[in-house]
Amino acid sequence: MKIAIVGASGHYRYVLDALAENELVGIAPGVSGEDLTKLKNALAKRGIEAREFADWRELVPLAEVAVVGTRFDQNAPIAGEFLKADKFVFSEKPLGTTEAQLEELQKLNDASRAFVCGMFGIRYAPWFLTIKKHLPEIGALRLLSAQKSYKMGKRADFYHKRETFGGIIPWVAIHGLDWILTLLGGDPVESVSAYQRPGEGGSELEPCAFVMMRTKGGVLASVSADYYRPEGAPTHDDDRLRVVGTKGILEAVGGVVTLLCENGAETLPLEEGEDVFRLFLRRCRGENVGVTPEESFYATQVALSARNAADAAL
Amino acid sequence: MKIAIVGASGHYRYVLDALAENELVGIAPGVSGEDLTKLKNALAKRGIEAREFADWRELVPLAEVAVVGTRFDQNAPIAGEFLKADKFVFSEKPLGTTEAQLEELQKLNDASRAFVCGMFGIRYAPWFLTIKKHLPEIGALRLLSAQKSYKMGKRADFYHKRETFGGIIPWVAIHGLDWILTLLGGDPVESVSAYQRPGEGGSELEPCAFVMMRTKGGVLASVSADYYRPEGAPTHDDDRLRVVGTKGILEAVGGVVTLLCENGAETLPLEEGEDVFRLFLRRCRGENVGVTPEESFYATQVALSARNAADAAL
Repeated sequence: MKIAIVGASGHYRYVLDALAENELVGIAPGVSGEDLTKLKNALAKRGIEAREFADWRELVPLAEVAVVGTRFDQNAPIAGEFLKADKFVFSEKPLGTTEAQLEELQKLNDASRAFVCGMFGIRYAPWFLTIKKHLPEIGALRLLSAQKSYKMGKRADFYHKRETFGGIIPWVAIHGLDWILTLLGGDPVESVSAYQRPGEGGSELEPCAFVMMRTKGGVLASVSADYYRPEGAPTHDDDRLRVVGTKGILEAVGGVVTLLCENGAETLPLEEGEDVFRLFLRRCRGENVGVTPEESFYATQVALSARNAADAAL
Repeated sequence: MKIAIVGASGHYRYVLDALAENELVGIAPGVSGEDLTKLKNALAKRGIEAREFADWRELVPLAEVAVVGTRFDQNAPIAGEFLKADKFVFSEKPLGTTEAQLEELQKLNDASRAFVCGMFGIRYAPWFLTIKKHLPEIGALRLLSAQKSYKMGKRADFYHKRETFGGIIPWVAIHGLDWILTLLGGDPVESVSAYQRPGEGGSELEPCAFVMMRTKGGVLASVSADYYRPEGAPTHDDDRLRVVGTKGILEAVGGVVTLLCENGAETLPLEEGEDVFRLFLRRCRGENVGVTPEESFYATQVALSARNAADAAL
């Protein structure tokens, strides 16, 4: 398919492998002055010299699929323009940084012959697929706890403004929310509460947050997100998930999955990972695989509700 | 000192070692029909044949120190009677199962020449003392996450009634709250929210709960408590604590403590554990050691607030 990449501020790495069997029609910054160097380097490494456009609007007629990952507050309006032209959109999460953006995008999605899906790529990591596979072994779901812990490293300026960043909950905790919503399998969230620590020293980037939820079915879930992982830590992130059921507990730490049940504890063999973007392209061609638009909107909606709860709790 | 033990439904094992150098004046059930067999067996194993009283009131004039751990709703009124007679009380936590009980006990404690402290014994476990010792190495405190996971096993009937049990938050999550409050070192809790899953099948025992807090100083904390640890698990409990600071992360899992900081990760040598009851006896003799009455009341108060929040959220 003909693919356009708008912006280099998100997880464009998800799409690189699939470029081998698709056509990259061009790349463009999503906001003026956005640095595309890393994206261009990653493409050059694969022998791809991308045509670069100054204005992403020029890509709308050329592309069948837009990969949108620019300054977070601009992802929704740009995705919307592609949807209006009936072009598929693989968008960075959250699908919008405000409720108004999300509502507008939902309308455009519903009116389009194409659709938008979010970059919820961790859902196809070996550890997550392994938990998903073994979920039936732990009985009825009762309690889920997710953790995202990141190094702060050097962040672009726009991370430090709520208006352009959106908040730690829609940007970081949303992954934990997505894992949880996926495993809940349709049991809707009934109540959400959250706390977050406000940014300091002129930054509006919240360095940590907790989100807590209860579903209609009475399942409890929580997500902890923080930017305090020391620079000396062996990996950039420390993703964890603990899933408690009536008959056992599944847990992932550092990519290793254990199952604790009546027979004791065992480390599970890992499933093969999948390519979230290739699944998306198959969905564009009519297959019912990968992340759905509905899931992408719902995860974003829950994340924005949690952020609002955290804002209100201050 | 002259020690009396009322009830065998709590952590009387905390006091057994110290009986070697103190005098056990007698034991009694806290409620009629309470089974003292396990306590008597534990004493017999140490060569102690305890004088058994049918009514704990007979122990009030005989004892200098009362160890109270009976049906949870009776701990506060019994502790109160000993305080009225100026006898020290080492009480099971929570200090009360209702706000009214706690207020009444606080009054009696303040009016007494003696005092009551709670059985927050895990605070003197090697892993916890190790975290406490290394706390200054992780900079300013930002985020604390505690976990208590227990096997359900066979529980006495009174666990299954809210009135006699009090709830999973005051009984189980309170330990995590106590660890957190200890490490916060006086930074008061400003906001608490909580969810719990209601009991099922005629039981009012909540099988799981989440508590979330924010302190005045902006530190976030959470406690997860559940009774879903599979019977096949190697240990009865799975206590965990993650303490995130601006310069590092301390973490205890399975009694092993790791420090992650600028220099990478290391497993810390464990501190020696301490005897919570012997510390209590030293406090009775005027030393400023061990758990204070103030800490015991505060941890109970926070636990009851969290339980109320969880009740209200249903």
